[in-house]
Amino acid sequence: MMGLNLHLFKTKSMIIPKEPVLSAEQLAQIIAIVTEYNCQIQTVAGHHRNVYAVLGEERSTEMVNRILGLDYIDRFDAVDSPFKLMDIKSELSNHKIILGNHILGNGSFVIAGHCTIDPKNPNLFIETAHAVKEAGAKAIRGGVWKPRTMPYSFQGDDASIKILMEARAQTGLPVDTEVMDEHQLRIAVEAGVDILQVGARNALNYSLLKNIGHLTQNKKIAVLLKRSMGMGPINEFIAAAEYIAAAGNPDIILCPRGTSPTMDGYRNYPDESITPLLKEKTWAPVIVDPCHSVGRAKYVPSAALAAMAYGADGVIIETHLDPQRGIGDDPKQSIKPAILKQLISDIEAIWEIKNRTVTA
Amino acid sequence: MMGLNLHLFKTKSMIIPKEPVLSAEQLAQIIAIVTEYNCQIQTVAGHHRNVYAVLGEERSTEMVNRILGLDYIDRFDAVDSPFKLMDIKSELSNHKIILGNHILGNGSFVIAGHCTIDPKNPNLFIETAHAVKEAGAKAIRGGVWKPRTMPYSFQGDDASIKILMEARAQTGLPVDTEVMDEHQLRIAVEAGVDILQVGARNALNYSLLKNIGHLTQNKKIAVLLKRSMGMGPINEFIAAAEYIAAAGNPDIILCPRGTSPTMDGYRNYPDESITPLLKEKTWAPVIVDPCHSVGRAKYVPSAALAAMAYGADGVIIETHLDPQRGIGDDPKQSIKPAILKQLISDIEAIWEIKNRTVTA
Amino acid sequence: MMGLNLHLFKTKSMIIPKEPVLSAEQLAQIIAIVTEYNCQIQTVAGHHRNVYAVLGEERSTEMVNRILGLDYIDRFDAVDSPFKLMDIKSELSNHKIILGNHILGNGSFVIAGHCTIDPKNPNLFIETAHAVKEAGAKAIRGGVWKPRTMPYSFQGDDASIKILMEARAQTGLPVDTEVMDEHQLRIAVEAGVDILQVGARNALNYSLLKNIGHLTQNKKIAVLLKRSMGMGPINEFIAAAEYIAAAGNPDIILCPRGTSPTMDGYRNYPDESITPLLKEKTWAPVIVDPCHSVGRAKYVPSAALAAMAYGADGVIIETHLDPQRGIGDDPKQSIKPAILKQLISDIEAIWEIKNRTVTA
Amino acid sequence: MMGLNLHLFKTKSMIIPKEPVLSAEQLAQIIAIVTEYNCQIQTVAGHHRNVYAVLGEERSTEMVNRILGLDYIDRFDAVDSPFKLMDIKSELSNHKIILGNHILGNGSFVIAGHCTIDPKNPNLFIETAHAVKEAGAKAIRGGVWKPRTMPYSFQGDDASIKILMEARAQTGLPVDTEVMDEHQLRIAVEAGVDILQVGARNALNYSLLKNIGHLTQNKKIAVLLKRSMGMGPINEFIAAAEYIAAAGNPDIILCPRGTSPTMDGYRNYPDESITPLLKEKTWAPVIVDPCHSVGRAKYVPSAALAAMAYGADGVIIETHLDPQRGIGDDPKQSIKPAILKQLISDIEAIWEIKNRTVTA
Repeated sequence: MMGLNLHLFKTKSMIIPKEPVLSAEQLAQIIAIVTEYNCQIQTVAGHHRNVYAVLGEERSTEMVNRILGLDYIDRFDAVDSPFKLMDIKSELSNHKIILGNHILGNGSFVIAGHCTIDPKNPNLFIETAHAVKEAGAKAIRGGVWKPRTMPYSFQGDDASIKILMEARAQTGLPVDTEVMDEHQLRIAVEAGVDILQVGARNALNYSLLKNIGHLTQNKKIAVLLKRSMGMGPINEFIAAAEYIAAAGNPDIILCPRGTSPTMDGYRNYPDESITPLLKEKTWAPVIVDPCHSVGRAKYVPSAALAAMAYGADGVIIETHLDPQRGIGDDPKQSIKPAILKQLISDIEAIWEIKNRTVTA
Repeated sequence: MMGLNLHLFKTKSMIIPKEPVLSAEQLAQIIAIVTEYNCQIQTVAGHHRNVYAVLGEERSTEMVNRILGLDYIDRFDAVDSPFKLMDIKSELSNHKIILGNHILGNGSFVIAGHCTIDPKNPNLFIETAHAVKEAGAKAIRGGVWKPRTMPYSFQGDDASIKILMEARAQTGLPVDTEVMDEHQLRIAVEAGVDILQVGARNALNYSLLKNIGHLTQNKKIAVLLKRSMGMGPINEFIAAAEYIAAAGNPDIILCPRGTSPTMDGYRNYPDESITPLLKEKTWAPVIVDPCHSVGRAKYVPSAALAAMAYGADGVIIETHLDPQRGIGDDPKQSIKPAILKQLISDIEAIWEIKNRTVTA
Repeated sequence: MMGLNLHLFKTKSMIIPKEPVLSAEQLAQIIAIVTEYNCQIQTVAGHHRNVYAVLGEERSTEMVNRILGLDYIDRFDAVDSPFKLMDIKSELSNHKIILGNHILGNGSFVIAGHCTIDPKNPNLFIETAHAVKEAGAKAIRGGVWKPRTMPYSFQGDDASIKILMEARAQTGLPVDTEVMDEHQLRIAVEAGVDILQVGARNALNYSLLKNIGHLTQNKKIAVLLKRSMGMGPINEFIAAAEYIAAAGNPDIILCPRGTSPTMDGYRNYPDESITPLLKEKTWAPVIVDPCHSVGRAKYVPSAALAAMAYGADGVIIETHLDPQRGIGDDPKQSIKPAILKQLISDIEAIWEIKNRTVTA
Repeated sequence: MMGLNLHLFKTKSMIIPKEPVLSAEQLAQIIAIVTEYNCQIQTVAGHHRNVYAVLGEERSTEMVNRILGLDYIDRFDAVDSPFKLMDIKSELSNHKIILGNHILGNGSFVIAGHCTIDPKNPNLFIETAHAVKEAGAKAIRGGVWKPRTMPYSFQGDDASIKILMEARAQTGLPVDTEVMDEHQLRIAVEAGVDILQVGARNALNYSLLKNIGHLTQNKKIAVLLKRSMGMGPINEFIAAAEYIAAAGNPDIILCPRGTSPTMDGYRNYPDESITPLLKEKTWAPVIVDPCHSVGRAKYVPSAALAAMAYGADGVIIETHLDPQRGIGDDPKQSIKPAILKQLISDIEAIWEIKNRTVTA
């Protein structure tokens, strides 16, 4: 976006073609028009159709009329929100994210697995992957890289990506891993990871978010975006998602994971309660991370159920066959597969309650 | 406690008699002994038995042996906690609070009714009382007095106590009201209120807590103690309950109600997640107030279900036949009886899930 | 205010007489008028003049005109703020609080002395009183009663009021003590205490605030109101002061003292930074308590200087000849008189900087 | 650090040579030794000497003795802190950072200039640069890139780096700019920027921090690291600095800039009060950013003075000749050069007070 002075951009407009996708010729024609008005076009790719955001200083009636005059254009929509794409009333409001054979929002979705893959014990992770599948999880978490408070702690290992993909091959489930920079991002995309996780520390790292949106465009890779650590405003969270969507990938899952300052006794201050507020503003599915929120295994099931009670679409649960042999956060906050199995049964029961009720 | 220099008291000890209650003569004998060692006796009355806390500068072996030598004394217990009475391992660990024909902890307990009784519309409150009973509530909330941010707002009316007691008479359900000072406390106790509520603003008003404990001793009146507003430590909350118990009434219910700073979008920052932490430390039942936590009626059911998911024993729900005609907080955060009925059904379902599971 | 349905009161109006005070006859005449319109009169006594707040459901033009028609009435003012009395644009905007021979706001004002008076060591307190006077303090703090987290801690002693008043007699300086209930309030007022302190735990105890305002009316007793513990809104703090003023005593000093959650390393989260925000909204002087804010003696001087840098009118500093022999909070957060002397010199220097500068 | 399993590293040890720098041959010899014990060497370059951190699973006595046996080795130090390098007791405790002709810590240091350089108005920035120099600033701030909450806001412009360097050339003062990714980092380093700023959103972006430490090693470029937004623990802040130091550049300045949740009335919750806590733990200088903390120009001078009162080594102040013509945060929180001049005079006066006093 360099080279054009965009700093006063106020418009929030999208062009919706009649067909799912503009042809290259049609797109060039539209770009030619908006350029006359100092505007730019940003293509936003969805599973079923593309929309074309107009970035520019003002909404010229003349420009709008010229675009609406093209016979392959259906609508020119103004979005009454700072969020052109993530807003619940935006063109993407019916956008669905598909992971494996599950459509997010249709029943509860549980991601489970190790916080961090131990490259010295690949079998431990593979066994956990099978166990969480058996327990009812629908995707597998495995940290290849891991942000650590201290630079001298284990930071992960590129080689673990193979272990993660082996788990995918053996179980048939989609896999999730966190990336912190372009190097890791390219490895993960190249390997075929299904869900890229952005952690709380990078939740407002806009350069990374743009990079992810750009490099995963049209690749059917979802991005699980954690909330940043402070008790910041909700719009800041959704705006971070907007960065990814504006860069080309609208398959975004929002993930509350507890905030600081901490609740005395927990690792963070649980914030699954943000779920109904998010769902009023955005169409994006919400998957809560109770493990980082409470930070100790014994509290995880209660926090997971509370997330479902607040209307979350699922949870991500650190699970380990033998937490004490885990690395990263696993020894503190991973539960065992047997606990996970019971928990998933309870989660499904709360899902049923929430989806038969009219009260929430 | 004036007149004796208690400021270095470290002992945490309790005398447990063989019979449920010491006779006056026995008590006098014990007081005579401990006084020789510069200690005092505090009687703590339970439904089934009394215990006798020893307050004093040190635990003299000689004194302990003299007391244990009395044939009517069963045990002299040291409590390994700052909380002689509220600690989960204290003598009161099996203490049960009975309200109406419900033992707290046995199934979910929902208190419902107006934030504030409008003295000009007594029938509105009576009708709500019948409606919440029909919806499944087990106790009736009705604010006779109401702390208000501004001194010029309606502060309640002594006369409303009659309306509250009329609701009790007509429905047969226990009633709950908030008191802020000794004047109100005496009126409420005199009238026969079943649950005295201490609001967040007075949650650390130790003079009031002592007064309540003293004036409700042996009167089968429960005290619902709200958590104070800041994100203060858990021990501060339990210590406030200890004030009431130490003053004579252990029938205490802990009530999280959201903390400040607020979550952007809610009235406060929801804190039902404190429930498992409280239950590890104290035997006291936990009833959550989701209405003050989220502050808007549409979010109340989700927050109430989350509280149950965290293991609460019940919730207190502002309910009003016609919230827009309500006063105090009712227009913003009261739900209607039809919503309450559905909510109670969902609450009971989550109670079942939590109490069949071993995971939480 | 019971017996009249005030719950919809929205008016914020004050009657200003031509003379400083209405005669009894004049006041009766005005009460007669406003009663016809379902309103009430609240007298607010200042050092130099009284104003008369009108509490009522609406501002009837007819009523206003009748009052303005009285020849002894100067103005009928509507205040554009929820704070009739505390607002910086209210009739009291030029109200000055005098303590000893100091007008608050004219130079820095330091209150110093023990957190808690030890009734077993009265001389220790008297010696500290002389030492803080010598160090430059303008008033003496001495806790007769003390709110403590645990009910088994030393709670203070009525008898200490004599020690406090002896310090006043010997030094000639005004004295400050905290009160938590009506019993203590009456003792302190009766003894002739100059500054009544309301602690953070009772900062929103409106019954106490009303009582204080009522019982100190026209007695030239100032009220030092601490901010409540949570990170609550500024208006809540000023509204609490409004309770005292509306009950009859406008000699109110606002005292930030740190909020919870704590800053990691301090007792609370320092909040002297609220000072400029308070001073924009209210005319009340601000005296900051850095000791409870940071909670450890070694950080107190820096925090005190920061408060002055933010424009505070003074600070209240726990000072003790021998902190390790102190009770209450003294061992942790009291400084020694020699440190206080240096600190007051620095405080005065920052006062000079702030009051020659145009930048703040 | 990939390829070696570092996840259990607990040692905190440093090798100090007798000469300021090990020769290549000496370093190779040491690496050969530690490799036998599964350890690694990390070179940490200072202005005056290098130290060599040992990263490894345990501290083998044999290994230590072999190293101490080398005649060019002075000491093998264990650091009693998680922070090998940033700890106040580490080998770097006397490390000094020099900017222009100023040694940080010797007198106050004020950085001033635009939040964001407007590439369409280069002269405005150059004029501001001259004006802040004249006002007494010792370095010039100019945002070439700017993280913005919304992806559609102006994000900065690579071309502005030339404007920034032109200001440096004309004024002779060191210049400061924020970088968010490797692309920007390389441009800034290549251009010769003196201070690289890491903003609050990237304060825990460890990949960026490592990259910065690596690419600025031995280049006499300082890194101004802002505190992350949440009220996180102090150690997390210092640990982030440790990432930069461990990657090779110990010229790190810590910058508190306010936390979320916000203080009602400010942009953030001011946290200059963290300064004394930082200075107890680390030798790094502290420069506070009051502009982002309070977020409105009129409060900036008071907050800047409070930072100095807490013992900060300086402040960074957004300053603009005509704030209303600014972009980014300038219209809200930039002060004018005339205000800056007065402020710097006050800052210097408080510096004098703090450095003659023994109280803080």
